[in-house]
Amino acid sequence: MELVTSFRNPLVKRIKRLRQRKYRQAEGAFFVEGIRVVLAALEQGAVVECLVYAPALLTSTPGRAAVAQYADQGLPCHALDAAVFAAVSERENPAGLGAIVRRPLLSLDALGVTPAGVYTALVEVSDPGNLGTILRTIDAAGGSGLILVGDCVDPFHPTAVKASMGTLFSVPMASAPDTATLLAWARTRGLHTVATSAKATGDYRRTVYHYPALLLLGSEGAGLDAATLSAADCAVTIPMRGTASSLNLAVAAGLLLYELTRPGDQASA
Amino acid sequence: MELVTSFRNPLVKRIKRLRQRKYRQAEGAFFVEGIRVVLAALEQGAVVECLVYAPALLTSTPGRAAVAQYADQGLPCHALDAAVFAAVSERENPAGLGAIVRRPLLSLDALGVTPAGVYTALVEVSDPGNLGTILRTIDAAGGSGLILVGDCVDPFHPTAVKASMGTLFSVPMASAPDTATLLAWARTRGLHTVATSAKATGDYRRTVYHYPALLLLGSEGAGLDAATLSAADCAVTIPMRGTASSLNLAVAAGLLLYELTRPGDQASA
Repeated sequence: MELVTSFRNPLVKRIKRLRQRKYRQAEGAFFVEGIRVVLAALEQGAVVECLVYAPALLTSTPGRAAVAQYADQGLPCHALDAAVFAAVSERENPAGLGAIVRRPLLSLDALGVTPAGVYTALVEVSDPGNLGTILRTIDAAGGSGLILVGDCVDPFHPTAVKASMGTLFSVPMASAPDTATLLAWARTRGLHTVATSAKATGDYRRTVYHYPALLLLGSEGAGLDAATLSAADCAVTIPMRGTASSLNLAVAAGLLLYELTRPGDQASA
Repeated sequence: MELVTSFRNPLVKRIKRLRQRKYRQAEGAFFVEGIRVVLAALEQGAVVECLVYAPALLTSTPGRAAVAQYADQGLPCHALDAAVFAAVSERENPAGLGAIVRRPLLSLDALGVTPAGVYTALVEVSDPGNLGTILRTIDAAGGSGLILVGDCVDPFHPTAVKASMGTLFSVPMASAPDTATLLAWARTRGLHTVATSAKATGDYRRTVYHYPALLLLGSEGAGLDAATLSAADCAVTIPMRGTASSLNLAVAAGLLLYELTRPGDQASA
Protein backbone atom coordinates (compact mmCIF):
# COMPACT_ATOMS: atom_id res chain seq x y z
CA MET A 1 0.00 0.00 0.00
CA GLU A 2 1.39 3.33 -1.09
CA LEU A 3 0.53 6.13 1.34
CA VAL A 4 -0.04 9.63 -0.02
CA THR A 5 1.95 11.90 2.29
CA SER A 6 2.27 15.03 0.14
CA PHE A 7 -0.23 17.85 0.45
CA ARG A 8 0.65 18.67 -3.18
CA ASN A 9 -0.24 15.26 -4.55
CA PRO A 10 -2.47 15.64 -7.65
CA LEU A 11 -5.31 13.65 -6.05
CA VAL A 12 -5.23 15.87 -2.96
CA LYS A 13 -5.28 18.99 -5.10
CA ARG A 14 -8.16 17.60 -7.15
CA ILE A 15 -10.32 16.84 -4.10
CA LYS A 16 -9.75 20.37 -2.85
CA ARG A 17 -10.73 21.75 -6.28
CA LEU A 18 -13.96 19.75 -6.11
CA ARG A 19 -15.03 21.93 -3.19
CA GLN A 20 -15.83 24.53 -5.84
CA ARG A 21 -19.00 24.17 -7.84
CA LYS A 22 -17.36 25.15 -11.12
CA TYR A 23 -14.94 22.22 -10.89
CA ARG A 24 -17.71 19.84 -9.85
CA GLN A 25 -19.67 20.89 -12.91
CA ALA A 26 -16.67 20.80 -15.26
CA GLU A 27 -15.68 17.31 -14.13
CA GLY A 28 -19.20 15.93 -13.55
CA ALA A 29 -17.82 14.59 -10.27
CA PHE A 30 -17.86 15.41 -6.59
CA PHE A 31 -16.18 14.31 -3.37
CA VAL A 32 -18.19 12.81 -0.52
CA GLU A 33 -16.88 11.86 2.89
CA GLY A 34 -18.21 9.88 5.81
CA ILE A 35 -18.90 6.20 6.34
CA ARG A 36 -22.64 6.27 5.77
CA VAL A 37 -22.61 8.32 2.57
CA VAL A 38 -19.72 6.39 0.98
CA LEU A 39 -21.39 3.07 1.77
CA ALA A 40 -24.66 4.43 0.34
CA ALA A 41 -22.86 5.41 -2.88
CA LEU A 42 -21.29 1.95 -3.20
CA GLU A 43 -24.43 0.01 -2.29
CA GLN A 44 -26.76 2.03 -4.50
CA GLY A 45 -24.66 1.62 -7.58
CA ALA A 46 -23.42 5.18 -7.92
CA VAL A 47 -20.47 5.58 -10.31
CA VAL A 48 -17.65 5.66 -7.76
CA GLU A 49 -14.41 6.68 -9.46
CA CYS A 50 -12.20 5.90 -6.47
CA LEU A 51 -12.18 5.54 -2.71
CA VAL A 52 -9.96 7.73 -0.56
CA TYR A 53 -9.15 6.66 2.97
CA ALA A 54 -6.81 7.30 5.85
CA PRO A 55 -5.73 3.98 7.45
CA ALA A 56 -4.87 5.83 10.66
CA LEU A 57 -8.32 7.43 10.93
CA LEU A 58 -10.63 4.76 9.52
CA THR A 59 -11.69 2.76 12.57
CA SER A 60 -15.21 1.90 11.33
CA THR A 61 -15.49 -1.87 10.74
CA PRO A 62 -17.93 -1.59 7.81
CA GLY A 63 -15.79 1.23 6.41
CA ARG A 64 -12.61 -0.87 6.50
CA ALA A 65 -14.47 -3.86 5.09
CA ALA A 66 -15.75 -1.76 2.17
CA VAL A 67 -12.24 -0.60 1.30
CA ALA A 68 -10.92 -4.17 1.37
CA GLN A 69 -13.83 -5.52 -0.68
CA TYR A 70 -13.84 -2.87 -3.38
CA ALA A 71 -10.03 -2.81 -3.66
CA ASP A 72 -10.27 -6.58 -4.30
CA GLN A 73 -12.79 -5.87 -7.04
CA GLY A 74 -10.33 -3.50 -8.72
CA LEU A 75 -11.76 -0.15 -7.62
CA PRO A 76 -8.90 2.36 -7.15
CA CYS A 77 -8.49 2.92 -3.39
CA HIS A 78 -6.03 5.63 -2.36
CA ALA A 79 -4.54 5.59 1.14
CA LEU A 80 -3.79 9.00 2.61
CA ASP A 81 -1.71 10.02 5.57
CA ALA A 82 -4.02 11.19 8.40
CA ALA A 83 -2.85 14.81 8.16
CA VAL A 84 -3.34 14.83 4.40
CA PHE A 85 -6.84 13.37 4.75
CA ALA A 86 -7.66 15.99 7.39
CA ALA A 87 -6.56 18.65 4.90
CA VAL A 88 -9.02 17.52 2.24
CA SER A 89 -11.79 16.89 4.79
CA GLU A 90 -14.34 19.53 5.70
CA ARG A 91 -15.09 17.89 9.04
CA GLU A 92 -13.66 18.54 12.45
CA ASN A 93 -13.25 14.84 13.16
CA PRO A 94 -12.90 13.14 9.79
CA ALA A 95 -13.94 9.49 9.73
CA GLY A 96 -11.16 8.70 7.27
CA LEU A 97 -13.27 7.55 4.31
CA GLY A 98 -14.28 9.44 1.19
CA ALA A 99 -15.06 8.83 -2.46
CA ILE A 100 -14.99 10.67 -5.75
CA VAL A 101 -18.36 10.04 -7.38
CA ARG A 102 -19.46 10.79 -10.95
CA ARG A 103 -23.07 11.87 -11.19
CA PRO A 104 -24.37 14.04 -13.99
CA LEU A 105 -27.88 15.43 -13.54
CA LEU A 106 -30.32 13.86 -16.03
CA SER A 107 -32.02 15.88 -18.73
CA LEU A 108 -35.81 16.02 -18.44
CA ASP A 109 -36.13 13.67 -21.42
CA ALA A 110 -34.01 11.07 -19.65
CA LEU A 111 -36.19 11.12 -16.51
CA GLY A 112 -38.61 8.18 -16.59
CA VAL A 113 -42.24 8.96 -15.71
CA THR A 114 -44.32 6.22 -14.07
CA PRO A 115 -48.16 6.34 -13.96
CA ALA A 116 -48.44 6.70 -10.17
CA GLY A 117 -45.25 8.74 -9.83
CA VAL A 118 -44.86 11.83 -7.66
CA TYR A 119 -42.11 14.17 -8.87
CA THR A 120 -40.82 17.22 -7.04
CA ALA A 121 -39.49 20.35 -8.75
CA LEU A 122 -37.54 22.92 -6.76
CA VAL A 123 -37.39 26.32 -8.43
CA GLU A 124 -34.32 28.43 -7.61
CA VAL A 125 -33.78 26.94 -4.20
CA SER A 126 -30.67 28.26 -2.49
CA ASP A 127 -30.21 26.41 0.81
CA PRO A 128 -28.13 23.23 0.46
CA GLY A 129 -29.37 21.83 3.78
CA ASN A 130 -32.99 22.17 2.63
CA LEU A 131 -32.17 20.51 -0.69
CA GLY A 132 -30.48 17.54 1.01
CA THR A 133 -33.32 17.19 3.53
CA ILE A 134 -35.88 17.23 0.69
CA LEU A 135 -33.96 14.43 -1.09
CA ARG A 136 -34.10 12.43 2.15
CA THR A 137 -37.85 13.04 2.39
CA ILE A 138 -38.51 12.15 -1.28
CA ASP A 139 -36.75 8.85 -0.66
CA ALA A 140 -38.77 8.19 2.51
CA ALA A 141 -42.14 9.16 1.05
CA GLY A 142 -41.60 7.03 -2.04
CA GLY A 143 -41.31 10.00 -4.39
CA SER A 144 -40.12 9.33 -7.92
CA GLY A 145 -37.57 12.02 -8.59
CA LEU A 146 -36.31 15.57 -8.11
CA ILE A 147 -36.00 18.27 -10.75
CA LEU A 148 -33.87 21.34 -10.09
CA VAL A 149 -35.19 24.32 -12.01
CA GLY A 150 -33.20 27.45 -12.88
CA ASP A 151 -30.46 28.74 -10.64
CA CYS A 152 -30.58 26.22 -7.78
CA VAL A 153 -27.92 25.37 -5.25
CA ASP A 154 -25.65 22.51 -6.33
CA PRO A 155 -27.08 19.19 -5.10
CA PHE A 156 -23.48 17.99 -4.71
CA HIS A 157 -22.64 20.79 -2.27
CA PRO A 158 -21.16 19.07 0.81
CA THR A 159 -23.98 20.35 3.05
CA ALA A 160 -26.62 18.98 0.66
CA VAL A 161 -24.83 15.65 0.42
CA LYS A 162 -24.62 15.40 4.21
CA ALA A 163 -28.28 16.36 4.81
CA SER A 164 -29.43 13.84 2.19
CA MET A 165 -28.09 10.98 4.35
CA GLY A 166 -27.03 9.05 1.27
CA THR A 167 -30.35 9.39 -0.55
CA LEU A 168 -28.87 11.52 -3.33
CA PHE A 169 -27.72 8.24 -4.84
CA SER A 170 -31.19 6.66 -4.77
CA VAL A 171 -33.42 9.52 -5.93
CA PRO A 172 -33.37 10.24 -9.72
CA MET A 173 -32.34 13.87 -10.26
CA ALA A 174 -32.79 16.02 -13.35
CA SER A 175 -32.40 19.68 -14.16
CA ALA A 176 -34.48 22.12 -16.21
CA PRO A 177 -33.40 25.59 -17.34
CA ASP A 178 -36.67 27.32 -16.38
CA THR A 179 -40.29 26.71 -15.33
CA ALA A 180 -41.64 27.21 -18.89
CA THR A 181 -39.49 24.29 -20.12
CA LEU A 182 -40.52 22.23 -17.10
CA LEU A 183 -44.24 22.85 -17.61
CA ALA A 184 -44.02 22.08 -21.35
CA TRP A 185 -42.31 18.78 -20.50
CA ALA A 186 -44.94 18.03 -17.84
CA ARG A 187 -47.78 18.55 -20.36
CA THR A 188 -46.10 16.27 -22.91
CA ARG A 189 -45.64 13.53 -20.34
CA GLY A 190 -49.15 13.80 -18.87
CA LEU A 191 -48.02 15.03 -15.48
CA HIS A 192 -50.56 16.88 -13.32
CA THR A 193 -48.84 19.95 -11.93
CA VAL A 194 -49.43 21.04 -8.34
CA ALA A 195 -48.08 24.49 -7.53
CA THR A 196 -47.63 25.54 -3.92
CA SER A 197 -48.11 29.07 -2.67
CA ALA A 198 -48.94 30.94 0.50
CA LYS A 199 -51.40 32.90 -1.68
CA ALA A 200 -53.30 29.85 -2.95
CA THR A 201 -56.68 29.06 -1.40
CA GLY A 202 -56.84 25.27 -1.81
CA ASP A 203 -56.00 23.41 1.40
CA TYR A 204 -53.41 20.76 0.45
CA ARG A 205 -55.33 18.23 2.61
CA ARG A 206 -58.64 18.81 0.80
CA THR A 207 -57.39 18.63 -2.77
CA VAL A 208 -57.97 15.61 -5.04
CA TYR A 209 -54.67 14.88 -6.75
CA HIS A 210 -54.18 13.14 -10.08
CA TYR A 211 -51.19 11.07 -11.08
CA PRO A 212 -48.51 11.13 -12.27
CA ALA A 213 -48.10 14.34 -10.29
CA LEU A 214 -45.48 17.06 -10.34
CA LEU A 215 -45.16 19.12 -7.16
CA LEU A 216 -43.69 22.60 -7.69
CA LEU A 217 -41.95 24.40 -4.83
CA GLY A 218 -40.46 27.89 -5.06
CA SER A 219 -37.46 29.39 -3.38
CA GLU A 220 -37.23 30.02 0.37
CA GLY A 221 -37.81 33.74 -0.04
CA ALA A 222 -39.80 34.49 -3.17
CA GLY A 223 -41.88 31.36 -3.78
CA LEU A 224 -43.20 30.59 -7.28
CA ASP A 225 -43.86 33.40 -9.76
CA ALA A 226 -47.39 34.32 -10.86
CA ALA A 227 -46.99 32.86 -14.36
CA THR A 228 -46.05 29.44 -12.94
CA LEU A 229 -48.90 29.53 -10.42
CA SER A 230 -51.49 30.25 -13.10
CA ALA A 231 -50.04 27.72 -15.56
CA ALA A 232 -50.17 24.82 -13.08
CA ASP A 233 -53.16 22.46 -12.99
CA CYS A 234 -53.85 23.34 -9.38
CA ALA A 235 -52.40 25.50 -6.63
CA VAL A 236 -52.47 24.48 -2.98
CA THR A 237 -51.46 26.02 0.30
CA ILE A 238 -50.54 24.73 3.76
CA PRO A 239 -52.75 26.54 6.29
CA MET A 240 -50.80 28.65 8.80
CA ARG A 241 -52.41 29.33 12.18
CA GLY A 242 -49.71 31.23 14.02
CA THR A 243 -47.58 34.34 13.85
CA ALA A 244 -45.13 33.08 11.23
CA SER A 245 -45.95 33.57 7.57
CA SER A 246 -44.31 30.44 6.20
CA LEU A 247 -42.88 27.05 7.02
CA ASN A 248 -39.34 25.92 6.48
CA LEU A 249 -39.13 24.73 2.86
CA ALA A 250 -38.09 21.18 3.75
CA VAL A 251 -40.95 20.88 6.27
CA ALA A 252 -43.43 22.17 3.66
CA ALA A 253 -42.05 19.72 1.08
CA GLY A 254 -42.43 16.89 3.61
CA LEU A 255 -46.10 17.71 4.29
CA LEU A 256 -46.91 17.90 0.57
CA LEU A 257 -44.98 14.76 -0.38
CA TYR A 258 -46.61 12.67 2.33
CA GLU A 259 -50.03 14.07 1.34
CA LEU A 260 -49.50 13.23 -2.34
CA THR A 261 -48.38 9.71 -1.43
CA ARG A 262 -51.06 9.18 1.24
CA PRO A 263 -52.55 5.69 0.88
CA GLY A 264 -56.07 5.45 -0.44
CA ASP A 265 -56.13 8.99 -1.77
CA GLN A 266 -54.75 8.27 -5.21
CA ALA A 267 -57.18 8.77 -8.11
CA SER A 268 -55.75 7.84 -11.48
CA ALA A 269 -55.54 10.47 -14.19
CA MET B 1 -27.57 60.16 21.26
CA GLU B 2 -24.50 58.65 22.83
CA LEU B 3 -22.65 56.28 20.49
CA VAL B 4 -20.81 53.29 21.99
CA THR B 5 -17.43 53.27 20.26
CA SER B 6 -15.40 51.13 22.66
CA PHE B 7 -15.04 47.41 22.10
CA ARG B 8 -14.52 47.15 25.87
CA ASN B 9 -17.82 48.80 26.79
CA PRO B 10 -19.64 46.70 29.45
CA LEU B 11 -22.70 46.22 27.19
CA VAL B 12 -20.50 45.00 24.35
CA LYS B 13 -18.73 42.57 26.67
CA ARG B 14 -22.06 41.34 28.02
CA ILE B 15 -23.51 40.64 24.56
CA LYS B 16 -20.38 38.65 23.70
CA ARG B 17 -20.72 36.70 26.95
CA LEU B 18 -24.32 35.83 26.04
CA ARG B 19 -22.98 33.77 23.14
CA GLN B 20 -22.18 31.16 25.76
CA ARG B 21 -24.96 29.03 27.12
CA LYS B 22 -23.75 29.21 30.72
CA TYR B 23 -24.12 33.01 30.72
CA ARG B 24 -27.52 32.83 29.01
CA GLN B 25 -28.69 30.44 31.72
CA ALA B 26 -27.12 32.44 34.56
CA GLU B 27 -28.70 35.70 33.38
CA GLY B 28 -31.98 34.24 32.06
CA ALA B 29 -31.38 36.42 29.00
CA PHE B 30 -30.13 36.11 25.46
CA PHE B 31 -29.17 38.35 22.55
CA VAL B 32 -31.05 38.24 19.27
CA GLU B 33 -30.20 40.11 16.12
CA GLY B 34 -31.96 40.83 12.85
CA ILE B 35 -34.93 42.99 11.91
CA ARG B 36 -37.54 40.22 11.78
CA VAL B 37 -36.68 38.56 15.06
CA VAL B 38 -36.35 41.81 17.03
CA LEU B 39 -39.70 43.05 15.68
CA ALA B 40 -41.24 39.68 16.57
CA ALA B 41 -39.92 39.97 20.14
CA LEU B 42 -41.35 43.49 20.49
CA GLU B 43 -44.70 42.72 18.86
CA GLN B 44 -45.27 39.49 20.73
CA GLY B 45 -44.70 40.99 24.12
CA ALA B 46 -41.40 39.33 24.96
CA VAL B 47 -39.54 40.92 27.88
CA VAL B 48 -37.09 43.06 25.92
CA GLU B 49 -34.48 44.47 28.26
CA CYS B 50 -32.96 46.82 25.72
CA LEU B 51 -32.49 47.40 22.01
CA VAL B 52 -29.02 47.63 20.50
CA TYR B 53 -28.58 49.24 17.11
CA ALA B 54 -25.97 50.70 14.78
CA PRO B 55 -27.29 53.89 13.19
CA ALA B 56 -24.80 53.49 10.34
CA LEU B 57 -25.97 49.95 9.53
CA LEU B 58 -29.70 50.08 10.29
CA THR B 59 -31.27 51.00 6.95
CA SER B 60 -34.51 49.05 7.42
CA THR B 61 -37.47 51.45 7.67
CA PRO B 62 -39.50 49.29 10.10
CA GLY B 63 -36.31 48.68 12.08
CA ARG B 64 -35.61 52.41 12.44
CA ALA B 65 -39.26 53.09 13.24
CA ALA B 66 -39.20 50.48 16.00
CA VAL B 67 -36.14 52.04 17.62
CA ALA B 68 -37.74 55.49 17.52
CA GLN B 69 -41.06 54.23 18.88
CA TYR B 70 -39.69 52.13 21.73
CA ALA B 71 -37.10 54.74 22.72
CA ASP B 72 -40.03 57.18 23.03
CA GLN B 73 -41.77 54.68 25.29
CA GLY B 74 -38.75 54.58 27.56
CA LEU B 75 -37.14 51.31 26.48
CA PRO B 76 -33.33 51.60 26.75
CA CYS B 77 -31.95 51.81 23.19
CA HIS B 78 -28.17 51.71 22.85
CA ALA B 79 -26.53 53.09 19.71
CA LEU B 80 -23.32 51.33 18.67
CA ASP B 81 -20.64 52.32 16.24
CA ALA B 82 -20.86 50.13 13.12
CA ALA B 83 -17.55 48.38 13.83
CA VAL B 84 -18.57 47.68 17.43
CA PHE B 85 -21.93 46.28 16.30
CA ALA B 86 -20.15 44.09 13.77
CA ALA B 87 -17.97 42.77 16.60
CA VAL B 88 -20.98 41.62 18.66
CA SER B 89 -22.83 40.34 15.60
CA GLU B 90 -22.52 36.75 14.40
CA ARG B 91 -23.56 37.66 10.87
CA GLU B 92 -21.47 38.49 7.86
CA ASN B 93 -23.66 41.46 6.97
CA PRO B 94 -25.29 42.61 10.20
CA ALA B 95 -28.60 44.44 9.79
CA GLY B 96 -27.70 46.75 12.69
CA LEU B 97 -30.51 45.82 15.09
CA GLY B 98 -30.45 43.52 18.09
CA ALA B 99 -32.09 43.10 21.47
CA ILE B 100 -31.37 41.56 24.82
CA VAL B 101 -34.42 39.50 25.74
CA ARG B 102 -35.32 37.89 29.07
CA ARG B 103 -37.07 34.58 28.72
CA PRO B 104 -36.99 31.90 31.37
CA LEU B 105 -38.34 28.49 30.37
CA LEU B 106 -41.59 27.70 32.20
CA SER B 107 -41.86 24.87 34.68
CA LEU B 108 -44.31 22.14 33.68
CA ASP B 109 -46.75 23.34 36.35
CA ALA B 110 -46.80 26.80 34.81
CA LEU B 111 -47.64 25.50 31.33
CA GLY B 112 -51.36 25.90 30.69
CA VAL B 113 -53.15 22.87 29.21
CA THR B 114 -56.19 23.50 26.99
CA PRO B 115 -58.72 20.72 26.14
CA ALA B 116 -57.95 20.59 22.42
CA GLY B 117 -54.26 21.40 22.85
CA VAL B 118 -51.40 19.65 21.06
CA TYR B 119 -48.11 19.81 22.96
CA THR B 120 -44.73 18.68 21.67
CA ALA B 121 -41.96 17.26 23.85
CA LEU B 122 -38.42 16.96 22.48
CA VAL B 123 -36.25 14.54 24.41
CA GLU B 124 -32.50 15.25 24.37
CA VAL B 125 -32.53 16.98 21.01
CA SER B 126 -29.14 18.35 20.04
CA ASP B 127 -29.48 20.24 16.75
CA PRO B 128 -30.35 23.93 17.26
CA GLY B 129 -31.55 24.31 13.65
CA ASN B 130 -34.01 21.45 14.11
CA LEU B 131 -35.24 22.94 17.38
CA GLY B 132 -35.85 26.36 15.81
CA THR B 133 -37.56 24.82 12.76
CA ILE B 134 -39.82 22.78 15.06
CA LEU B 135 -40.82 25.94 16.94
CA ARG B 136 -41.70 27.54 13.59
CA THR B 137 -43.80 24.49 12.69
CA ILE B 138 -45.59 24.37 16.07
CA ASP B 139 -46.57 27.99 15.55
CA ALA B 140 -47.80 27.31 12.00
CA ALA B 141 -49.73 24.14 12.86
CA GLY B 142 -51.45 25.77 15.81
CA GLY B 143 -49.60 23.70 18.41
CA SER B 144 -49.94 24.72 22.04
CA GLY B 145 -46.42 24.54 23.39
CA LEU B 146 -43.00 22.95 23.44
CA ILE B 147 -41.40 21.02 26.31
CA LEU B 148 -37.66 20.39 26.32
CA VAL B 149 -36.83 17.20 28.18
CA GLY B 150 -33.45 16.31 29.65
CA ASP B 151 -30.22 17.49 28.10
CA CYS B 152 -31.52 19.44 25.08
CA VAL B 153 -29.79 22.10 23.04
CA ASP B 154 -30.44 25.65 24.31
CA PRO B 155 -33.54 27.10 22.56
CA PHE B 156 -31.83 30.50 22.77
CA HIS B 157 -28.81 29.31 20.76
CA PRO B 158 -28.43 31.82 17.90
CA THR B 159 -29.03 29.10 15.27
CA ALA B 160 -32.26 28.02 17.01
CA VAL B 161 -33.42 31.63 17.32
CA LYS B 162 -32.73 32.25 13.62
CA ALA B 163 -34.44 29.05 12.43
CA SER B 164 -37.51 29.82 14.56
CA MET B 165 -38.16 32.96 12.48
CA GLY B 166 -39.40 34.83 15.54
CA THR B 167 -41.77 32.11 16.71
CA LEU B 168 -39.79 31.40 19.87
CA PHE B 169 -41.61 34.40 21.33
CA SER B 170 -45.08 33.11 20.45
CA VAL B 171 -44.82 29.41 21.40
CA PRO B 172 -45.01 28.65 25.16
CA MET B 173 -41.86 26.76 26.19
CA ALA B 174 -41.26 24.67 29.29
CA SER B 175 -38.59 22.27 30.45
CA ALA B 176 -38.69 18.93 32.24
CA PRO B 177 -35.75 17.12 33.82
CA ASP B 178 -36.59 13.69 32.39
CA THR B 179 -39.30 11.68 30.63
CA ALA B 180 -40.56 10.09 33.88
CA THR B 181 -41.37 13.55 35.27
CA LEU B 182 -42.94 14.54 31.95
CA LEU B 183 -45.16 11.45 31.79
CA ALA B 184 -46.26 11.86 35.42
CA TRP B 185 -47.24 15.47 34.67
CA ALA B 186 -49.08 14.36 31.50
CA ARG B 187 -51.13 11.82 33.46
CA THR B 188 -52.07 14.40 36.10
CA ARG B 189 -53.19 16.88 33.44
CA GLY B 190 -55.14 14.35 31.37
CA LEU B 191 -52.83 14.53 28.34
CA HIS B 192 -52.87 11.61 25.89
CA THR B 193 -49.28 10.75 25.12
CA VAL B 194 -48.23 9.86 21.58
CA ALA B 195 -44.72 8.42 21.32
CA THR B 196 -43.00 8.27 17.95
CA SER B 197 -40.60 5.56 16.93
CA ALA B 198 -39.26 3.89 13.81
CA LYS B 199 -39.98 0.61 15.63
CA ALA B 200 -43.68 1.34 16.26
CA THR B 201 -46.27 -0.34 14.02
CA GLY B 202 -49.11 2.20 14.09
CA ASP B 203 -49.20 4.38 10.96
CA TYR B 204 -49.46 7.99 12.18
CA ARG B 205 -52.13 8.62 9.52
CA ARG B 206 -54.36 5.75 10.68
CA THR B 207 -54.31 6.46 14.40
CA VAL B 208 -57.25 8.01 16.26
CA TYR B 209 -55.83 10.70 18.51
CA HIS B 210 -57.35 12.00 21.72
CA TYR B 211 -56.94 15.47 23.14
CA PRO B 212 -55.29 17.21 24.81
CA ALA B 213 -52.38 15.39 23.21
CA LEU B 214 -48.67 15.27 23.98
CA LEU B 215 -46.41 14.30 21.10
CA LEU B 216 -43.05 12.83 22.18
CA LEU B 217 -40.06 12.99 19.86
CA GLY B 218 -36.64 11.54 20.65
CA SER B 219 -33.19 12.72 19.68
CA GLU B 220 -31.86 12.72 16.12
CA GLY B 221 -29.74 9.65 16.70
CA ALA B 222 -31.19 7.49 19.45
CA GLY B 223 -34.93 8.19 19.41
CA LEU B 224 -37.04 7.53 22.50
CA ASP B 225 -36.00 4.88 25.01
CA ALA B 226 -38.00 1.67 25.48
CA ALA B 227 -39.43 2.71 28.86
CA THR B 228 -40.91 5.89 27.39
CA LEU B 229 -42.31 4.03 24.39
CA SER B 230 -44.11 1.50 26.57
CA ALA B 231 -45.35 4.11 29.04
CA ALA B 232 -47.00 6.27 26.37
CA ASP B 233 -50.70 5.87 25.53
CA CYS B 234 -49.85 5.04 21.93
CA ALA B 235 -46.80 4.76 19.69
CA VAL B 236 -46.88 5.72 16.03
CA THR B 237 -44.47 5.62 13.13
CA ILE B 238 -44.07 7.44 9.83
CA PRO B 239 -43.82 4.82 7.07
CA MET B 240 -40.53 4.89 5.16
CA ARG B 241 -40.49 3.54 1.62
CA GLY B 242 -36.95 4.23 0.46
CA THR B 243 -33.34 3.51 1.29
CA ALA B 244 -33.04 5.91 4.25
CA SER B 245 -33.95 4.70 7.71
CA SER B 246 -35.30 7.95 9.11
CA LEU B 247 -36.54 11.42 8.31
CA ASN B 248 -34.99 14.67 9.41
CA LEU B 249 -36.39 15.36 12.91
CA ALA B 250 -38.00 18.68 11.95
CA VAL B 251 -39.69 17.09 8.91
CA ALA B 252 -40.99 14.23 11.09
CA ALA B 253 -42.26 16.72 13.69
CA GLY B 254 -44.01 18.66 10.91
CA LEU B 255 -45.82 15.57 9.61
CA LEU B 256 -46.96 14.57 13.10
CA LEU B 257 -48.03 18.07 14.16
CA TYR B 258 -50.08 18.62 11.01
CA GLU B 259 -51.64 15.17 11.44
CA LEU B 260 -52.58 15.84 15.07
CA THR B 261 -54.10 19.19 14.12
CA ARG B 262 -55.78 17.91 10.94
CA PRO B 263 -59.33 19.31 10.72
CA GLY B 264 -62.18 16.90 11.34
CA ASP B 265 -60.00 14.25 12.89
CA GLN B 266 -60.21 15.44 16.47
CA ALA B 267 -62.06 13.16 18.86
CA SER B 268 -62.40 14.53 22.37
CA ALA B 269 -60.98 12.65 25.29
